[in-house]
Amino acid sequence: MTNLVSRRQFTIEWAHCDPAGIVFNSRFFEYFDWGTWTLFEAALGVKPPDLAAAFGIMGLPLVDASARFVAPARFGDVVELTSQVSEFRRSSFEVAHQLMVRGALAVEGRETRVWAARDPADPLKIKGQVIPPDVVKRFQAP
Amino acid sequence: MTNLVSRRQFTIEWAHCDPAGIVFNSRFFEYFDWGTWTLFEAALGVKPPDLAAAFGIMGLPLVDASARFVAPARFGDVVELTSQVSEFRRSSFEVAHQLMVRGALAVEGRETRVWAARDPADPLKIKGQVIPPDVVKRFQAP
Amino acid sequence: MTNLVSRRQFTIEWAHCDPAGIVFNSRFFEYFDWGTWTLFEAALGVKPPDLAAAFGIMGLPLVDASARFVAPARFGDVVELTSQVSEFRRSSFEVAHQLMVRGALAVEGRETRVWAARDPADPLKIKGQVIPPDVVKRFQAP
Amino acid sequence: MTNLVSRRQFTIEWAHCDPAGIVFNSRFFEYFDWGTWTLFEAALGVKPPDLAAAFGIMGLPLVDASARFVAPARFGDVVELTSQVSEFRRSSFEVAHQLMVRGALAVEGRETRVWAARDPADPLKIKGQVIPPDVVKRFQAP
Repeated sequence: MTNLVSRRQFTIEWAHCDPAGIVFNSRFFEYFDWGTWTLFEAALGVKPPDLAAAFGIMGLPLVDASARFVAPARFGDVVELTSQVSEFRRSSFEVAHQLMVRGALAVEGRETRVWAARDPADPLKIKGQVIPPDVVKRFQAP
Repeated sequence: MTNLVSRRQFTIEWAHCDPAGIVFNSRFFEYFDWGTWTLFEAALGVKPPDLAAAFGIMGLPLVDASARFVAPARFGDVVELTSQVSEFRRSSFEVAHQLMVRGALAVEGRETRVWAARDPADPLKIKGQVIPPDVVKRFQAP
Repeated sequence: MTNLVSRRQFTIEWAHCDPAGIVFNSRFFEYFDWGTWTLFEAALGVKPPDLAAAFGIMGLPLVDASARFVAPARFGDVVELTSQVSEFRRSSFEVAHQLMVRGALAVEGRETRVWAARDPADPLKIKGQVIPPDVVKRFQAP
Repeated sequence: MTNLVSRRQFTIEWAHCDPAGIVFNSRFFEYFDWGTWTLFEAALGVKPPDLAAAFGIMGLPLVDASARFVAPARFGDVVELTSQVSEFRRSSFEVAHQLMVRGALAVEGRETRVWAARDPADPLKIKGQVIPPDVVKRFQAP
């Protein structure tokens, strides 16, 4: 059994690059966020802005993010981002991202996110919720 | 009678610069937004996140923005941003911004914003409100 | 005779939206920059990172930018950006951008850019160059 | 012997926050980059844009970055970022960042960077260089 993988192809923009002529690191975390929303739409069949309401949550807050920069991505590079859930836990999960440039790995990322709802006792707080088994199942590749 | 002018001094960051080694244009519009919030806090004595509630509005949505780029700003430049309301109309106003680098004008900006509330007939819509004369008066320099 | 128009369709990302739930204004200027590079690639048949070398210039520096915000764009909206040169002058030109959301105009933008080379007398300065007639001709729609 | 710690205080901007009303994760990596430049200026007494030339390097490229998000930072929050080198190795080093909101830890970050020069054999490549002991010494608190 394998994981559902979502793919996005896009071109590196001038606005994403720094004076060294390469993508500034924070932009990769924007790409990862994209990748996660794209993956959840592919798996759950729900448009990103409708996800929270559809599942009775407030969102998928990030608690940890990291990236390893293996090779630079430059203005005009056509890149491919692949994203998959590498692990589901009780109320949190890991998303693994890979950004390929010209067929070689350029950046490897990881996000830890929580399946979270508002705390009924204190609506300013959020609480992890048990991820429904039906949700987990949708992330298995057919 | 002159206008209240707010000033912010800051240093141009690496992350704000593009492969030409100068600030990418969209960042100046972030600076202008900063400048407007800073000006309103100075004039009205209310922290930006409390502004809407304090005045019964939903915010100060932007309807028009422009910038004229006279000279580049580079990584490490210490710049000064001055912001002032150049004109109040019935329910909208103009904010004029100037960004100085080494004492010379580098960028000139202008924002048109609305003093806006939710439309009671349709909460998804917003409507301009008459700007209270007391608010306008606070933008006159002492 | 009509102008060549380039089109890009994309989806509004979470990372592009502000606490009001709509695209923060500076992001539209990133989109316009995208739009201009896309248009020049379509017209001139040269990849954006190769444009400067192909035409003996240092780039297309922006001297003026503006936007009129007609309707908000929200997370998940599929938008279409159209870009065209609305006027060529001796060494500068105007790019007109329109961002459509659900078939209606949401944002109208304009950039003034210069066809520029390094000043041979002072390589830290840039100078507008006469835009070659062959370049101008390529922006006419077939 | 303790490490030199640099501190920056700043206010969370509207433009840095997402539709959940909190700082979007990628912005923290911009803050970390700021923090590192500020720390190096404090330690080495060289303005950030002059650092490379002063030490015969091409820069401090990032090879790894991570963040742990403990509590949200919101629009208008006054935050303090502290940055210090937690470890120097032969040609790379770790920068540890902490972002405090109202006196409590909100985000913890880490960057791995390389003291790098262009490869003389291939100027498109960069190579780690031995970090001079004099440089390392400057990061010890007096």
